[in-house]
Amino acid sequence: MINWKNLDTLRSFEALKREEKVNLASVLAGSEGGKRIKECCVPMAAGMNYYYGAKQVNGRIVEGLKALAAEAQLAEKFRELYEGAVINTGEGRRVLHQLTRGQLGKDVEADGVNKRAFYLEQQKKIAEFAVRVHEGKILNEKGERFTTAVQIGIGGSDLGPRAMYLALENWAEHSGCFRMEARFISNVDPDDAVGVLNAVDLAHSLFILVSKSGTTLETLTNEAFVRNALEKAGLDPSRHMIAVTSETSPLARSSDYLAAFFMDDYIGGRYSSTSAVGGAVLSLAFGPEVFDRFLAGAAETDRLSTNADPQQNAAMMDALIGVYERNVLGYPATAVLPYSQALNRFPAHLQQLDMESNGKSVNRFGEKVSYATGPVIFGEPGTNGQHSFYQLLHQGTDIIPLQFIGFKKNQTGVDVDIQGSSSQQKLCANVAAQMVAFACGKEDENANKRFEGNRPSSIIIGDQLTPEALGALLAHFENKVMFQGFLWNLNSFDQEGVQLGKVLAKKVLAHQTDGALEALSSLLEI
Amino acid sequence: MINWKNLDTLRSFEALKREEKVNLASVLAGSEGGKRIKECCVPMAAGMNYYYGAKQVNGRIVEGLKALAAEAQLAEKFRELYEGAVINTGEGRRVLHQLTRGQLGKDVEADGVNKRAFYLEQQKKIAEFAVRVHEGKILNEKGERFTTAVQIGIGGSDLGPRAMYLALENWAEHSGCFRMEARFISNVDPDDAVGVLNAVDLAHSLFILVSKSGTTLETLTNEAFVRNALEKAGLDPSRHMIAVTSETSPLARSSDYLAAFFMDDYIGGRYSSTSAVGGAVLSLAFGPEVFDRFLAGAAETDRLSTNADPQQNAAMMDALIGVYERNVLGYPATAVLPYSQALNRFPAHLQQLDMESNGKSVNRFGEKVSYATGPVIFGEPGTNGQHSFYQLLHQGTDIIPLQFIGFKKNQTGVDVDIQGSSSQQKLCANVAAQMVAFACGKEDENANKRFEGNRPSSIIIGDQLTPEALGALLAHFENKVMFQGFLWNLNSFDQEGVQLGKVLAKKVLAHQTDGALEALSSLLEI
Repeated sequence: MINWKNLDTLRSFEALKREEKVNLASVLAGSEGGKRIKECCVPMAAGMNYYYGAKQVNGRIVEGLKALAAEAQLAEKFRELYEGAVINTGEGRRVLHQLTRGQLGKDVEADGVNKRAFYLEQQKKIAEFAVRVHEGKILNEKGERFTTAVQIGIGGSDLGPRAMYLALENWAEHSGCFRMEARFISNVDPDDAVGVLNAVDLAHSLFILVSKSGTTLETLTNEAFVRNALEKAGLDPSRHMIAVTSETSPLARSSDYLAAFFMDDYIGGRYSSTSAVGGAVLSLAFGPEVFDRFLAGAAETDRLSTNADPQQNAAMMDALIGVYERNVLGYPATAVLPYSQALNRFPAHLQQLDMESNGKSVNRFGEKVSYATGPVIFGEPGTNGQHSFYQLLHQGTDIIPLQFIGFKKNQTGVDVDIQGSSSQQKLCANVAAQMVAFACGKEDENANKRFEGNRPSSIIIGDQLTPEALGALLAHFENKVMFQGFLWNLNSFDQEGVQLGKVLAKKVLAHQTDGALEALSSLLEI
Repeated sequence: MINWKNLDTLRSFEALKREEKVNLASVLAGSEGGKRIKECCVPMAAGMNYYYGAKQVNGRIVEGLKALAAEAQLAEKFRELYEGAVINTGEGRRVLHQLTRGQLGKDVEADGVNKRAFYLEQQKKIAEFAVRVHEGKILNEKGERFTTAVQIGIGGSDLGPRAMYLALENWAEHSGCFRMEARFISNVDPDDAVGVLNAVDLAHSLFILVSKSGTTLETLTNEAFVRNALEKAGLDPSRHMIAVTSETSPLARSSDYLAAFFMDDYIGGRYSSTSAVGGAVLSLAFGPEVFDRFLAGAAETDRLSTNADPQQNAAMMDALIGVYERNVLGYPATAVLPYSQALNRFPAHLQQLDMESNGKSVNRFGEKVSYATGPVIFGEPGTNGQHSFYQLLHQGTDIIPLQFIGFKKNQTGVDVDIQGSSSQQKLCANVAAQMVAFACGKEDENANKRFEGNRPSSIIIGDQLTPEALGALLAHFENKVMFQGFLWNLNSFDQEGVQLGKVLAKKVLAHQTDGALEALSSLLEI
């Protein structure tokens, strides 16, 4: 029997608040500190590990977090979710993105079909289509091959697929797999489409229109932009466009597209990178085998995430520590800091994933909660961030918990030795140094050069950012956010907070405004 | 006589805390709300305006802010700064970036020269060099023209120049000015350099090495990377590289470079976009006339920023409202949300500018302060963000103040009408709608669809994002951050918080570690 309860009604949470707080500089001192770093480790998929020894926890607090996980029934709730319960209560929907990459429990039947079979069928159709494009069986009007894929989509149809594409671009270039360039158009700002269309070779570009509902304003507007450009260039848009949408959308059966691939209402936009939304562009860009490897990494993470013991479940441990930092220690934000240039847009994807899922003030029953929920999420790759906002992270007046990601090897294998070390070694030396600097700080007679320390961080360490590792990272954070939603008793799968702006924007465009809205409209000369 | 005092010792600050708080939904209701939006306006440079009617202020609070500005001597402190006082006390340096774009007060002599004349001379040298490249007077070994400029730099030598380049790329394409493509290498992650070098045509690329000290680890490492690549391609690195550095740096007089252009210690990295650091790449990319127009916008902002009355000084008003939000209302972060795809990396630049300048816990005398200083800064362009993290901004448990930027016209003039409106109109309608949605909220029986409102935002509205407007925006935020530093009594111009990590990273690379640092090093296999 599942109990959906508010965090502040759980006895284990109240007990956690009473635990003595941890001072990082003292627990990380000396050889005991080294031991702690190595021991506070949870294995992840794709050979990665999650290390939380530089977080403000100790044995008693970890026991408290385990009690919280049990009392909040995190594993049981996850099972409910992946076996097809209507977890997205507000919209009356199941939450099935895990089924796009594997099956963890019993069959899920919905809309008269087995959903795992449905998602697999879409993947197979996409794989076949991509191979036909790559083999030159699908060609443009002149019988020439396509060289570029351009995704048209916004929000979850943009940030996740774009971050995944950028994460694998260099890897693919050096692994010898098939390569098509990919570009992305998202913003309703016309200059976004103009810029991308200027940069690509239209005659050899294949456009992927991505909208679940088939009604997203930005995406339809950008589709029209692209159609105009194709027609002006004497090209037939229906030979240059495919659609990724739901079966019930206006785009689904249109002869305007070379092909249509489907997702459904059980996959939220921000959870759709492993569905056809990410599948089409990634399979075209790198080939279906690479996309399969990406899915395999995500599926392995999902399996590990079913474990009820947070010491064997990195996503759950990460979620619990995050809630401890937010609700016991009172920290307002979390920075995600990948030491990998390939992950340069991964924080932007996590920003959507996390803030759109858990940036809410009412619980799943529509009752206002009286505790903090989702934090602000931001981040840039290291070492770049060290030369930018790290000043505030080290010496600012607020403590911001940090989530580092690092890899032993770089993606391309190309490197250069300077002053006795390679660039990759310098990169790794920096992330190790930062963690210790944040945790342990440094005394100095000059207060301006003093580091108070006790600033918590975790690190995920992998061997190399491969497709499997990327899929594993993606699913890790999806599952972390889900577990945090369970802890806060939120519905992490709707986004009612985006509706009001849409309604008011329509009023502006219909000139049905008054007062402040009319004033702003007139200042902007709409 | 200038008094450097802590914020919480100012009587006007204590008075501000006692003022009754403003409810935005009520002050923005009806026709009074429309009037308020239009009236709460401060003129900016380049024909732009700063509107603060959707901020939680009223007449009494604005009077309080004016009193605070006077008591904190903001205008007098700015004058001290631009007339060459040693404002950066920790490092014993003047702060002279305004002199790169104009002169606001008396001559500043330092190091035996007139500094305005020195910066102008560098600009002129850069302009001449750029024109010679454009006219084909400086050519590669084979006598061919350069087509691409690649900046090698990190932090302020990367984020600002990169954001400015991206902001003008589309504009330049459609304005008919000279165009060279620009690319940027920053991260010590070797895959960053590998990716850029794969994407450019080496034989026709000109590399700009940017490091004030000439000792930045990442930049020297990436220089070696680029030299290797050039040599492998049978090219002579000294014919493909220029340096931007200080006159005393090891790079300054080297025959390894085609030319060297200078900045100095009085220009902090994050304030260097209008110096040679931004000047070289922007003059090469778009021509010196465009860079001049950019400087003119910044200079006009600087002149407006000398006004002691915040109602005539947008940077000062913005700074005061930000401090009110941070220290009276207690908000933890600020989101910067430009409704312009061209500004897609502008928030990343502001993140450095703001968080590195004011993310500090000790005042300019090295005493710990007992109030919050710089907030977390983050942002992405709209409308993209609306489909991402805006959920938390609307319905999350923390209130995050917002800073919108919008333009009446797009940069390229290319647009498409759909459903009775252009994309640009849709873009503008969305930003207007968001401001009202955040401020006024919406009642609903279903708490999940309820918007509490009272979430404050400002907007800067311009006609079009031209070089002048971009320069004006850049200087607006530089001066805002400076005024906030004055209010918090910080030294906004050093960055001691980045030192400890550097020291520890060197220890790792020298294998002089133990305890936690050794454990992390071994886990990362350094």
